[in-house]
Amino acid sequence: MEYKIALIPGDGIGPEIVAEARKVLDKVCEKYSHKFSYTEVLLGGASIDAHGVPLTEEAIAQAKASDAVLMGSIGGDAKTSPWYKLEPSKRPEAGLLAIRKALNLFANLRPAYLYNELRDACPLRDEIIGDGFDMIIVRELTGGLYFGARKTTEENGVRTAVDTLSYNENEIRRIAIKAFEIARKRRNKVTSVDKANVLDSSRLWRSVVEDVAKDYPDVTLEHMLVDNCAMQLVRDPKQFDVILTENMFGDILSDEASMVTGSIGMLSSASLNETKLGLYEPSHGSAPDIAGQNKANPIATILSAAMMLRYSLDLDKEADAVEAAVQKVLTDGYRTGDIMSDGCKPVGTKEMGDLIADAI
Amino acid sequence: MEYKIALIPGDGIGPEIVAEARKVLDKVCEKYSHKFSYTEVLLGGASIDAHGVPLTEEAIAQAKASDAVLMGSIGGDAKTSPWYKLEPSKRPEAGLLAIRKALNLFANLRPAYLYNELRDACPLRDEIIGDGFDMIIVRELTGGLYFGARKTTEENGVRTAVDTLSYNENEIRRIAIKAFEIARKRRNKVTSVDKANVLDSSRLWRSVVEDVAKDYPDVTLEHMLVDNCAMQLVRDPKQFDVILTENMFGDILSDEASMVTGSIGMLSSASLNETKLGLYEPSHGSAPDIAGQNKANPIATILSAAMMLRYSLDLDKEADAVEAAVQKVLTDGYRTGDIMSDGCKPVGTKEMGDLIADAI
Ligand SMILES: CC(C)[C@H](C(=O)O)[C@@H](O)C(=O)O
Ligand SMILES: CC(C)[C@H](C(=O)O)[C@@H](O)C(=O)O
Repeated sequence: MEYKIALIPGDGIGPEIVAEARKVLDKVCEKYSHKFSYTEVLLGGASIDAHGVPLTEEAIAQAKASDAVLMGSIGGDAKTSPWYKLEPSKRPEAGLLAIRKALNLFANLRPAYLYNELRDACPLRDEIIGDGFDMIIVRELTGGLYFGARKTTEENGVRTAVDTLSYNENEIRRIAIKAFEIARKRRNKVTSVDKANVLDSSRLWRSVVEDVAKDYPDVTLEHMLVDNCAMQLVRDPKQFDVILTENMFGDILSDEASMVTGSIGMLSSASLNETKLGLYEPSHGSAPDIAGQNKANPIATILSAAMMLRYSLDLDKEADAVEAAVQKVLTDGYRTGDIMSDGCKPVGTKEMGDLIADAI
Repeated sequence: MEYKIALIPGDGIGPEIVAEARKVLDKVCEKYSHKFSYTEVLLGGASIDAHGVPLTEEAIAQAKASDAVLMGSIGGDAKTSPWYKLEPSKRPEAGLLAIRKALNLFANLRPAYLYNELRDACPLRDEIIGDGFDMIIVRELTGGLYFGARKTTEENGVRTAVDTLSYNENEIRRIAIKAFEIARKRRNKVTSVDKANVLDSSRLWRSVVEDVAKDYPDVTLEHMLVDNCAMQLVRDPKQFDVILTENMFGDILSDEASMVTGSIGMLSSASLNETKLGLYEPSHGSAPDIAGQNKANPIATILSAAMMLRYSLDLDKEADAVEAAVQKVLTDGYRTGDIMSDGCKPVGTKEMGDLIADAI
């Protein structure tokens, strides 16, 4: 089959890790007789450099005309990038928020999985890791504080800034359905996280989630307050299967969960809308300090490409093959610097890409 | 000297842990020739049971007429308490929010400290703990999403809920000053946490904090995004001295930090206003499942009483004595169930209180 893929190399290590993902996808094409055509799309810092803004209408149109978008990473070093002198709405991340909104990518899926081979990298003690943990965070991505009205005003010389956290029940229902559907294919448990003892939006969240749960009698639903969830991720990550939450809580908890695995260089993500179109990117950032040095771990991007094969292109077998190749290379003891440990074989970005492509 | 203390035993294990703190304070009185007079004040579930509401005007007046408020814990088990059938504004936690507002307790201080004796309880690996960590979270407590306007409306059968996150510069300035003052007495570092790449309130936060920092050239200021901070607390808690943040982020991060120590039964808190009056309570909850069984760890409450001696009563020497007594009892190997480990001596709530009082 033929597929159109929009590639967003992005900033920092973005271009080099996307190149490795493409190498792996090329191998998938060869082996399974597909054809992927690529369009390079500018977003973030790269777009600011070329066009003065972090996302252009043209880039949106290119993304919309594709079957899927595969991205590296956006942003630079806040201390040194010239971009950070720009006002916030013109900075690299603004492009990320804009493309989420433009493509209506309301469902952000972030698996946080502990690879048994990488147990040593996990910051938690062995007793807590136990047989390992495997959760996925389903974060609402186009609502809440991120997209509510905001303004800063001044009265009598005193500035006041206001942000708005708003959700309607349709927004909550569609993300809840995603979470329950995913739970059904996993271990049948949804933990919905909110702050219902304080926020109206959380109380609405809870009531809609309970309503959706009625259609999934085979899935266990539990509610957890966000402060408690931040504790439980450290105390006992094994308890979680699917965590369902709103945008800001999801931002915080998914990063915490990824650090709890100890190998953020391994973690993929998918941002989906109601159609098949999705945006796929590693969970980690653009790591400008190691950009261009063949040091970055391309696995998170390669696994994001696997998610793309699965969710946007319906190529499950091919996705399985990519994931198996990553697993094989880990089992064989190859490691980039971020996941290196005693007795393993150190490799760079490109070598890691080659090894995974070869294993397909 | 003579001091008036409002005691709020609260719900669940509250009454028993407050009783032990009082035992320790009695010993302080005896040894240092002070007189503490106590007024019992109802808040939370206990107040709902007695008066139908979680906080009465009388209770506020009693608190205001005191030199300090010492509290147990508020709330019950959401699954079984009759309180949770009430609408949110009438539930136990509503009393907690109301008293914070009524007493203008804008500064919540939550130390997260790893006791060397309790290293085994820490969920993090030894390499990460290193020589231990010792941070304090300074959380803004009377602004932000907790106290902004909120409402739920319905249009064409679709409900929408809105909460508001608002800060003015005066609110930010006074909490920032607290953080810098505290940093000066510690290791001279403030990490201000926000989401300035998205929120207007965070951008105002950042600019006011930078302004305040100019008066503290001896204190290093760094900014950190909240999602990154949630990661860093797990990756390397040693890097933190004082964490300064707004209400909701502070709720999440302080709970995460307390779990990172592994001994939440040891962690105190203080909520302060511009006067000497403060409210002191353990960081942990009301643990209804073990209430009344002489199992609860009273140390967090006893250490909260020590904070009270220090911040509201200016009795530094006495506060030091209480902290030293806690340290001695730990060194001697006494442990309640929550912090028990091999070779230590198990004790109950009352015995722990006796041991600490005796050590003063
Ligand atoms: C860059 C930033 C705006 C973004 C977010 O907060 O959503 C990032 O942290 C993420 O999680 O994708
Ligand atoms: C009970 C709840 C409203 C409260 C809060 O969120 O402030 C609690 O979690 C705390 O941190 O003191």
